Amino acid sequence: MPPYNKTDRSTLKRLPARGFYDRDLVHKILDEGFICHVGFVADGKPVVIPTGYGRIGDKLYIHGSQASRMLRTLKTGVAACVTVTLVDGLVLARSAFHHSINYRSVVIFGNATLVEDPEEKSAALLAFSEHVIEGRWKDVREPTEQELKATTVLMLLLEEVSAKVRTGPPIDDEEDYDLPVWAGVVPLRIVAGAPINDPRLSPEIVPPEYALNYKRG
Amino acid sequence: MPPYNKTDRSTLKRLPARGFYDRDLVHKILDEGFICHVGFVADGKPVVIPTGYGRIGDKLYIHGSQASRMLRTLKTGVAACVTVTLVDGLVLARSAFHHSINYRSVVIFGNATLVEDPEEKSAALLAFSEHVIEGRWKDVREPTEQELKATTVLMLLLEEVSAKVRTGPPIDDEEDYDLPVWAGVVPLRIVAGAPINDPRLSPEIVPPEYALNYKRG
Repeated sequence: MPPYNKTDRSTLKRLPARGFYDRDLVHKILDEGFICHVGFVADGKPVVIPTGYGRIGDKLYIHGSQASRMLRTLKTGVAACVTVTLVDGLVLARSAFHHSINYRSVVIFGNATLVEDPEEKSAALLAFSEHVIEGRWKDVREPTEQELKATTVLMLLLEEVSAKVRTGPPIDDEEDYDLPVWAGVVPLRIVAGAPINDPRLSPEIVPPEYALNYKRG
Repeated sequence: MPPYNKTDRSTLKRLPARGFYDRDLVHKILDEGFICHVGFVADGKPVVIPTGYGRIGDKLYIHGSQASRMLRTLKTGVAACVTVTLVDGLVLARSAFHHSINYRSVVIFGNATLVEDPEEKSAALLAFSEHVIEGRWKDVREPTEQELKATTVLMLLLEEVSAKVRTGPPIDDEEDYDLPVWAGVVPLRIVAGAPINDPRLSPEIVPPEYALNYKRG
């Protein structure tokens, strides 16, 4: 797929070697994560709120209660910045200065639009659900018309997007490599524990495969 | 410790039952996390960037290269919003509508100030390092004067702060509890893998305890 266009805002100014505009890489990072941090301006000041998301092609969807201040603000079409960060490891160098973190992040600039078409809205909610936990949607009671009405879905086009990646071992100053200090990477990942039954669950219902073997990436 | 004061901006408007201003809870969330998402306004538009942080009492510290656009913008004292999110689990309800995520988050509003005092700057960098990986600082080469000069440290006072927490099982509509659908929580946590030696590490150096048994929270 063609890369995203670099705009002034999405062009990485510092350490450009860590910056990427590759569409497949951006999609891969977005698909491994499921929590984004949404930034918007309210009363002239920045607000950053975590929320889940789903993706269909080059459209990112977020949703929530129609009472949510974030969604009520964003649906007016104000500028937004949505950031997804995956933390892959701690990079332990021989000097304090060269310690770092291995990560993959995506920053999206844009303006959200309200999804009003019922079909797109349903498709977005399904995509959201499958994005967070694949296989769940077919098992649950689908939204009623009233629930759909109470849910705001917003779409942000993936257009002005960049990814940033740091990977690999520490890079120490040449003269520090002889120091008798352990150096390397402590890898980090998100792991699911054993599913916890709802206290009101009927005893004959067992957890489905997607809950027993949940993993990301 | 006394709770944080609620301001108009930090008061949770929706689901106030999930909102907290308790200082110990805020500190606990901040201490378990180590990546924050920093929001600021540049050219009238929001920008959200992930970065590490440390805490000393009611001061949150972030740092980075003096060339960083984020730090150069924030050090002018513009409004900032710093959000830390811990994802604790997926909440699987019997209806699509009542699915949720268990999480703990902290949102801090404020204006960063540049740390110029050399002692505070050194203390902040030590706190940052110990926050990310306790025990590391004593093993590594400390920053030189030139490295300190190349590092910008900013402080944000914890003053206008709120925490938000969702915990526990799904809350379904009463009539849905009889559906033959598994419901409950898939707990999530961050786990460290076995440390990966730097390819240039001398073979006699073994990973320290804090790298072998790294955990958060």
